Amino acid sequence: MKEYYLGLDLGGTKILTGLADKNGKILARSRKDTEAKYGEEKIIANMVESIEDVLAKTELKAEDIKCLGIGSPGPLDAKKGIIIENSNLPWKNVAIVDRIEKEVGIKTLLKNDANAAALGEKWFGAGRKVKNLVYITISTGVGGGAIINQELFTGVNDNACEIGHTVIDPDGPLCGCGNHGCLEAFASGTAIGRMAQEATAEGKSKKMLDLADNIIEDVDAVICAQAAYQGDQIAKDIFAIAGFYLGIGLANLINIFNTEMIILGGGVMKASDLFLDKALELMRENALAGPLEIVEIREAELGSDIGLMGAIAVAMEDRLIKNG
Amino acid sequence: MKEYYLGLDLGGTKILTGLADKNGKILARSRKDTEAKYGEEKIIANMVESIEDVLAKTELKAEDIKCLGIGSPGPLDAKKGIIIENSNLPWKNVAIVDRIEKEVGIKTLLKNDANAAALGEKWFGAGRKVKNLVYITISTGVGGGAIINQELFTGVNDNACEIGHTVIDPDGPLCGCGNHGCLEAFASGTAIGRMAQEATAEGKSKKMLDLADNIIEDVDAVICAQAAYQGDQIAKDIFAIAGFYLGIGLANLINIFNTEMIILGGGVMKASDLFLDKALELMRENALAGPLEIVEIREAELGSDIGLMGAIAVAMEDRLIKNG
Repeated sequence: MKEYYLGLDLGGTKILTGLADKNGKILARSRKDTEAKYGEEKIIANMVESIEDVLAKTELKAEDIKCLGIGSPGPLDAKKGIIIENSNLPWKNVAIVDRIEKEVGIKTLLKNDANAAALGEKWFGAGRKVKNLVYITISTGVGGGAIINQELFTGVNDNACEIGHTVIDPDGPLCGCGNHGCLEAFASGTAIGRMAQEATAEGKSKKMLDLADNIIEDVDAVICAQAAYQGDQIAKDIFAIAGFYLGIGLANLINIFNTEMIILGGGVMKASDLFLDKALELMRENALAGPLEIVEIREAELGSDIGLMGAIAVAMEDRLIKNG
Repeated sequence: MKEYYLGLDLGGTKILTGLADKNGKILARSRKDTEAKYGEEKIIANMVESIEDVLAKTELKAEDIKCLGIGSPGPLDAKKGIIIENSNLPWKNVAIVDRIEKEVGIKTLLKNDANAAALGEKWFGAGRKVKNLVYITISTGVGGGAIINQELFTGVNDNACEIGHTVIDPDGPLCGCGNHGCLEAFASGTAIGRMAQEATAEGKSKKMLDLADNIIEDVDAVICAQAAYQGDQIAKDIFAIAGFYLGIGLANLINIFNTEMIILGGGVMKASDLFLDKALELMRENALAGPLEIVEIREAELGSDIGLMGAIAVAMEDRLIKNG
């Protein structure tokens, strides 16, 4: 039997699928719209088509594929292969692993996207040389995944490392999870956008209002970043607030995980020069000397491939650990 | 060779040593004053005497002992067997494992006291039936230790699980570590004592002042607890504040570790009826549904034996994992 692996990154708008050899080298890719609005069956049909597409491109058959890894936003039950819920997809409790295995005849594994990304960066990205790392994605939300002694730390029911939902200021703003002052409520793209809208609504930033064509509802993290790059002090201050709390979050992770490396990824990191210095300053102030002195902070290396390479790493994890 | 184990709990005022059979049953004990004020050599001599004492009581010899475990406050380097510093003992960078091995001829292992206690509760206490737990000690400080898949999670250089020094409110009071708003600055015995002294100094609690014979400096967590039990509302409020922040700390741990059990120990837990309900309320409010539904909160079972049983568990860890 040949040894190939598939990875599928299930997003709210697109499905990215890749076929890799046993070294993780991508031989073929497919990109398909998720078409979430047409519902569960259509999404699954698109996933299957996407898989068949990469197989056809490489003239490989299902029996040549050792494993398919799926990365998906959660919450999900990785052990049972069930996506419990997904704010971007119109479904609940979908036994996606069973369905895909039946449709394509390939052994399938499921992980949440942040955990998959942590595996991707561990095996193919910035974390290749370390055995312990914490990956943080700073995106719409803030998520995380930890690798301990080469292996993904999943927790008892695949809910470990929800660092976006650790409270770092009980008087802080309301988070999507219902708490006040989670890391995600300060340092996510959503949080930055919320602070930017609030400041604009209060008349504090003409620049952001201009950039949003006077539509306050259109002010978001991207506009806030644009304004900051154009010198708008209010926009800069908002990123500094995000950096302040991110730095405390980093220190807390360092004091809890005592890890070798923290890798920062996610879309908001494209504007890292607006907040990372502040974050590192706070991190150094708040972390204990012992764990601080051995940790390295790195930016993710996989860029827009992180979801796909993460899904491939999910498929390959056993092999990678054995050979790693 | 017979198979016996030694545990030594090194405290600022006393050294507790125990000799256990291969099932962890204590066959002999010794208690000796640490005599910290006489310096390093005297402390080590007292440790050695204490070990010789339990050997003599059982008529066993060094060669009958498979391993000696030492539990000590940190920071320390467990791998190198070095106690780096200890606020209760007048020494720095003591290679305690080398010294003790040379003096008594028994293979020796060192862990920080919170990690040793986590091992003790895992193998001999409340955590016997689970494979994953987090132990929290609420005492002079707040410390922790995590067991993941039966094994102690040490981190890369033995600094993992410093949960007392995770910031949960950057505007909070100054902590001994130099940060503001660590869990320890809200929920430790020291923090409770500080809040009690402040309230007494502001004339808010005649009860606490009375209990301290009018000496504000003598107001501490014990007096605060006494006052609370006697109905003093200010003292009750102080414990409620500690409970509030402890609950947020518990929720954060649940969201990060996704563990089966959290075990609460340490001297402050003697007054748990003054703050635990509040802590559990906040924990349930702030933890995510997925990890919350599978976690159990328990009080430590080993009581005043936790240091000693922890040290014995350090000595026995390999055997316990193999048979566990």
